[in-house]
Amino acid sequence: MSLQPLKACTVRGPQSCRIMAPTKKGVLERLDAGEIVVGDGGFVFALEKRGYVKAGPWTPEAAAEHPEAVRQLHREFLRAGSNVMQTFTFYASDDKLENRGNKVTFTGAQINEAACDLAREVANEGDALVAGGVSQTPSYLSCKSEKEVKATFKKQLDVFIKKNVDFLIAEYFEHVEEAVWAVEVLKETGKPVAASLCIGPEGDMHGVSPGECAVRLVKAGAQIVGVNCHFDPMTCVKTVKMMKEGVEKAGLKAHYMSQPLAYHTPDCNCQGFIDLPEFPFGLEPRILTRWDMHKYAREAYNAGIRYIGGCCGFEPYHIRAVSEELAHERGFLPAASEKHGSWGAGLEMHTKPWVRARARCEYWENLKPASGRPQCPSMSVPDGWGVTKGHNDLLQQKEATSQDQLKKLFDRSKSH
Amino acid sequence: MSLQPLKACTVRGPQSCRIMAPTKKGVLERLDAGEIVVGDGGFVFALEKRGYVKAGPWTPEAAAEHPEAVRQLHREFLRAGSNVMQTFTFYASDDKLENRGNKVTFTGAQINEAACDLAREVANEGDALVAGGVSQTPSYLSCKSEKEVKATFKKQLDVFIKKNVDFLIAEYFEHVEEAVWAVEVLKETGKPVAASLCIGPEGDMHGVSPGECAVRLVKAGAQIVGVNCHFDPMTCVKTVKMMKEGVEKAGLKAHYMSQPLAYHTPDCNCQGFIDLPEFPFGLEPRILTRWDMHKYAREAYNAGIRYIGGCCGFEPYHIRAVSEELAHERGFLPAASEKHGSWGAGLEMHTKPWVRARARCEYWENLKPASGRPQCPSMSVPDGWGVTKGHNDLLQQKEATSQDQLKKLFDRSKSH
Amino acid sequence: MSLQPLKACTVRGPQSCRIMAPTKKGVLERLDAGEIVVGDGGFVFALEKRGYVKAGPWTPEAAAEHPEAVRQLHREFLRAGSNVMQTFTFYASDDKLENRGNKVTFTGAQINEAACDLAREVANEGDALVAGGVSQTPSYLSCKSEKEVKATFKKQLDVFIKKNVDFLIAEYFEHVEEAVWAVEVLKETGKPVAASLCIGPEGDMHGVSPGECAVRLVKAGAQIVGVNCHFDPMTCVKTVKMMKEGVEKAGLKAHYMSQPLAYHTPDCNCQGFIDLPEFPFGLEPRILTRWDMHKYAREAYNAGIRYIGGCCGFEPYHIRAVSEELAHERGFLPAASEKHGSWGAGLEMHTKPWVRARARCEYWENLKPASGRPQCPSMSVPDGWGVTKGHNDLLQQKEATSQDQLKKLFDRSKSH
Amino acid sequence: MSLQPLKACTVRGPQSCRIMAPTKKGVLERLDAGEIVVGDGGFVFALEKRGYVKAGPWTPEAAAEHPEAVRQLHREFLRAGSNVMQTFTFYASDDKLENRGNKVTFTGAQINEAACDLAREVANEGDALVAGGVSQTPSYLSCKSEKEVKATFKKQLDVFIKKNVDFLIAEYFEHVEEAVWAVEVLKETGKPVAASLCIGPEGDMHGVSPGECAVRLVKAGAQIVGVNCHFDPMTCVKTVKMMKEGVEKAGLKAHYMSQPLAYHTPDCNCQGFIDLPEFPFGLEPRILTRWDMHKYAREAYNAGIRYIGGCCGFEPYHIRAVSEELAHERGFLPAASEKHGSWGAGLEMHTKPWVRARARCEYWENLKPASGRPQCPSMSVPDGWGVTKGHNDLLQQKEATSQDQLKKLFDRSKSH
Repeated sequence: MSLQPLKACTVRGPQSCRIMAPTKKGVLERLDAGEIVVGDGGFVFALEKRGYVKAGPWTPEAAAEHPEAVRQLHREFLRAGSNVMQTFTFYASDDKLENRGNKVTFTGAQINEAACDLAREVANEGDALVAGGVSQTPSYLSCKSEKEVKATFKKQLDVFIKKNVDFLIAEYFEHVEEAVWAVEVLKETGKPVAASLCIGPEGDMHGVSPGECAVRLVKAGAQIVGVNCHFDPMTCVKTVKMMKEGVEKAGLKAHYMSQPLAYHTPDCNCQGFIDLPEFPFGLEPRILTRWDMHKYAREAYNAGIRYIGGCCGFEPYHIRAVSEELAHERGFLPAASEKHGSWGAGLEMHTKPWVRARARCEYWENLKPASGRPQCPSMSVPDGWGVTKGHNDLLQQKEATSQDQLKKLFDRSKSH
Repeated sequence: MSLQPLKACTVRGPQSCRIMAPTKKGVLERLDAGEIVVGDGGFVFALEKRGYVKAGPWTPEAAAEHPEAVRQLHREFLRAGSNVMQTFTFYASDDKLENRGNKVTFTGAQINEAACDLAREVANEGDALVAGGVSQTPSYLSCKSEKEVKATFKKQLDVFIKKNVDFLIAEYFEHVEEAVWAVEVLKETGKPVAASLCIGPEGDMHGVSPGECAVRLVKAGAQIVGVNCHFDPMTCVKTVKMMKEGVEKAGLKAHYMSQPLAYHTPDCNCQGFIDLPEFPFGLEPRILTRWDMHKYAREAYNAGIRYIGGCCGFEPYHIRAVSEELAHERGFLPAASEKHGSWGAGLEMHTKPWVRARARCEYWENLKPASGRPQCPSMSVPDGWGVTKGHNDLLQQKEATSQDQLKKLFDRSKSH
Repeated sequence: MSLQPLKACTVRGPQSCRIMAPTKKGVLERLDAGEIVVGDGGFVFALEKRGYVKAGPWTPEAAAEHPEAVRQLHREFLRAGSNVMQTFTFYASDDKLENRGNKVTFTGAQINEAACDLAREVANEGDALVAGGVSQTPSYLSCKSEKEVKATFKKQLDVFIKKNVDFLIAEYFEHVEEAVWAVEVLKETGKPVAASLCIGPEGDMHGVSPGECAVRLVKAGAQIVGVNCHFDPMTCVKTVKMMKEGVEKAGLKAHYMSQPLAYHTPDCNCQGFIDLPEFPFGLEPRILTRWDMHKYAREAYNAGIRYIGGCCGFEPYHIRAVSEELAHERGFLPAASEKHGSWGAGLEMHTKPWVRARARCEYWENLKPASGRPQCPSMSVPDGWGVTKGHNDLLQQKEATSQDQLKKLFDRSKSH
Repeated sequence: MSLQPLKACTVRGPQSCRIMAPTKKGVLERLDAGEIVVGDGGFVFALEKRGYVKAGPWTPEAAAEHPEAVRQLHREFLRAGSNVMQTFTFYASDDKLENRGNKVTFTGAQINEAACDLAREVANEGDALVAGGVSQTPSYLSCKSEKEVKATFKKQLDVFIKKNVDFLIAEYFEHVEEAVWAVEVLKETGKPVAASLCIGPEGDMHGVSPGECAVRLVKAGAQIVGVNCHFDPMTCVKTVKMMKEGVEKAGLKAHYMSQPLAYHTPDCNCQGFIDLPEFPFGLEPRILTRWDMHKYAREAYNAGIRYIGGCCGFEPYHIRAVSEELAHERGFLPAASEKHGSWGAGLEMHTKPWVRARARCEYWENLKPASGRPQCPSMSVPDGWGVTKGHNDLLQQKEATSQDQLKKLFDRSKSH
């Protein structure tokens, strides 16, 4: 464990350190050199809690509407040690924005450009790269053709190219087939391509194993492969290990990434946390502690994963914990560690002696934190109707779900 | 329940609504008129997670060092419906700052003034008042005289008077005697005074009952009395109810406030969450959901409490939930509700039908969220050595705790 | 802890040891001499599981109908170290037997006499006394007069006198008033009288404190006072401690007894486990381990309680654990300890070495046993409509509850 | 669900019904005719709690030493609906008895004969068959030859043949290889042979899948195959389903049996409950309710299992619940149901109306019973050193484990 304090780097936000080397090392240069790349955390969940994103549609109009909030979150992740600023462009196509009840007068292009500018502005405050991303499409779930789906990805790329992001991520895919299509499109840009599925050890929604998924992605041209979202850190690391085994067995080479949830999900089925009854507004008891994150970072590192970040539920202090665990390997502590004694060392100054007695690694490493909810269970039974791509239950409509349609759903779902 | 949507108010951050009536109603005017005053959440815990406050010393140098981060948090609470911006001046005396290892070159005065300016700047963006606060002192615990303790409070008041805060709060007192002294000092300013103890139903650390505590505070001149921190919302409401009964039995009058933790604490003893083994870095499983906050807001309102806010653990979405629950009583939804469908209504637009089936009050109201931690308990046994003011174990020293002293504490404490 | 093995006494069931000293020491002689009297466990719950008692009516016709089953259970408690065989005569009045759907052709007198004979037969196999008992009456709950209620008790005494039991117990009373009446009746027999309420620290159903209850019982003539049933061991010990304090404060003298449940009940309200949703057919997860019983026995002993037994949920091995914990104080191990290595010592002979590693006190003393039920809570919310003696909801009728009446109850109760 | 009451059969213990048809149907006749055969529960755990078996050595000297206790337990299972009385002869070889510290002067032959007589005596009181059983041997684990292992089984058979049991069970085998050897020996007697492994869905200790295990057993001559012990009912049913699929895929035919634990074991690894930290003295919180048993019986029946019984942890009321769930399929309720209203119907007569409201199937079927242990987890991490047959850690010695050897084990094992 990284108990011995290192000097925190001097990146400290807007007042200082804005002068960076004009030519940063690219993501592949770093990974090829064996460096750790610390990712950031998910923006939609964090900004929903802060009041700038609506759960359900999850659209990113805040990039244009409330840039100070988005900039602040980027900056917090940077200070926590992130080497990557992902543009906040999730679901920012015009149809989606309209579709999802977005009433403000920003076009998709305006939002996407604003998001790229914010990511770049903050990346320039430290040693971070800008990554643009594409995700799974409703078109695929509705069984559109490969050509149509690929066209959707191409359209999203325009702004990333115009704004010259440093690399591209195809992330949050439940079906490897669609992810392969995305990688094929992203490869055409000449930028480095990472590909990240939202799957667990059982594989993709059609039962393709993690190892086989990874092989297909590498063959399609992805230089970095891994998983993000849907499962907790330990499950994600386990899944990426299976990917690595598959790739190595096939005689191929790749770098590996994991960007898991910050929620414990021992009770998930193959579709992940979305099927848990607590999704998305009752997940609080599942939030990982910073000490859970230390374990995640170590486990991921030991598994050979070098791009280590987070997704939904990650707050800046979670990324800071990853950075602190890996401080010796990276050679520095993140800026925000100025405000954090490793393994609770700041408690040495607490007024109560029995709280000072918690200022040590052994204490926090072994703590089994109580839920404070004695009338709640520790695991749930996932919802989900056992259907995926192509099933009638999943066909999408342009109009909002009507009250009548909802009524039927309420009756069909198990009550709580 | 406040199911029928109201129009969200037009306060939307920096771009708009900056022009407010020059003469806002004061806190007592509002309470006398029967209005609800929604408080804000605690800053030290929220900013610790964001990377700007160090747990242990908990000092507020960020007001001067990283004003953009403090401003952003104020703004998020404002958008969530807060009517009060408490200045981020907790523990900002020169000795404390030095004492606590604060290496940056800001004086206490600089920090306090910066904090007042930030609170006023954001208060002016909406219908909020600025409150300055004082808290319990190490001097009292170390058995200094009434005169010495009162001198400490007086010193802290200077900046609040200079910056003309709208009212004053004496908060986070474990001993009613010290709180009475604080109220007596604050009263001399002529500003409205609120007094808030960090006690539960068992009363203060010397066993003075909540009812008796409240009577003493009202007699000392506090116009608003209540509790903050240390216990979960339902425990705090229960305690304030006992205060109200005491005040009414004594033939006195007051307004009532509660600013609880956002952590479930069914297992606390009289000293509150500080004695829980999870304090302060393993509290995640105890975090309240937004639906827990709905219940809190309703319960507080029904108990006759009209100043309803939060303390450690509260994030902006928790205050938003309080505001949404009380939207009908207040006549409006907070600005941030633009980004939140009441009771999960935003899920109507989710792609999976079984998630759409969660878009209703009954679902969330009855959910018993799982912890996802099957190897953890649901309740803890509090630490604590059963001592309080004047005991040798609690005497404070200027120097940092030495490794030798720590070693003794580690051995003495129960292992985990 | 009683780690050093003592020689097990030679009482070994029917084949041996039948010749006992013709004049055993009485219960008061033993207690006056400072000896521990180990009670037995509850019969209705144990025999319900074995198939001889019907839950609901809980009548004891098995004494006449299946004597071999009742005799066997007595014998198991004797072998486990019990010094008292309570006659299995709970609810054995003619009206009750008829009332409760008892179709077999035994009169109350037949059952009661059979029960006394069985208790005496087994008591003679070892160093045990026979106790006859009376319990609270439907008459009292239905507001009958003191005279009527006392007449009920008198009638029950006839068989105990005829069969010459060694002492009498008035047990399982929720209202101290009725218990006092019972004691007054029992005292007239000249036999030693024990009085045991089924209350917790909050006192009887009319809010009379445990201390005050105990004082009234002692003044009425009870030589032994305490509690039984309704709460878990630690709660019962706490309650008896309050009784002892009350009696001592009043300048009186008494012996103390506790016969708690073998179920953990941290979530009970004042009416005890009957109001728990799990009563009576879902209590399994709450069953105490033998190690919990060691703690109970030690705690009871340390509190000055010398009559230490059990009630519903106790199986013979629970009483054996009490006897083993107190083996040094009593000077012997019970007969059944021949079949039990103290603190798991028998595991020394297990084939798997990691199971052999459990053959020690520290292991079992510190084990926090898992429920194996991750979808269940750890605590329940008690049922109960907040009513007691005299309330319409509790009036009793001779006829069985009709389907119509049940339907109304089902609707009124919270669903599960 | 079997809500409609059936007439309980008239078997009621020793006083009645002793005259049975001289020629009962054999076990295969019953199963071939599609009848359900209800097994009994495990004797060692039940008699350990009653004080007649020592945990660790688990030897059955009680059959000779305390026949009344063994007879009583047989009778309770018979009254609960069991069609099989398994002789209480577990581990009754001379070497084992001596080895295990058995100081009483009974030979293995005496014990085995007494056990057969007791089983037959009670079987004759109702419609039950007598089954003799053999289990896995220390010889196999210590890598003795097939010949030596088979000789052990042969020796055990002598008494079963002499006493003319109705059929034979090879049960509690962790390695299918040894079970096949046992079946081959048992087959030579000409009696019907059942074979039951103590494995879960992961298969035997060498990783042979349940389906493959079953095929081997059927090919070796077993007419009934299944699992017993080590896992909870639902896990056992799942495993037997895999066996059935394997047998059917191989074009073979068999009958199926399951005799699971009465403990919830969601957290077991492949070695089952023995590796749980709670084994064997802290399993109480895991005990199944009678309603869990209803689900088990239905699930087993639906899976095509027709020999449905239990193992460790089963008490008579658990078997009664199995019999009640299957009452319609069998055409009768067991004798003990006279003392049990189906689905809690006996509560109709309870004095408290909110308890009467529990007298219905829906209530108990949906109850999630609380553990009453808020400081305990819901799942454990299994112990176990990942070794099996042939490993040095598992070599057996004649002498008792010495204190020195134990000390090493204590240090090696994780502390609690």
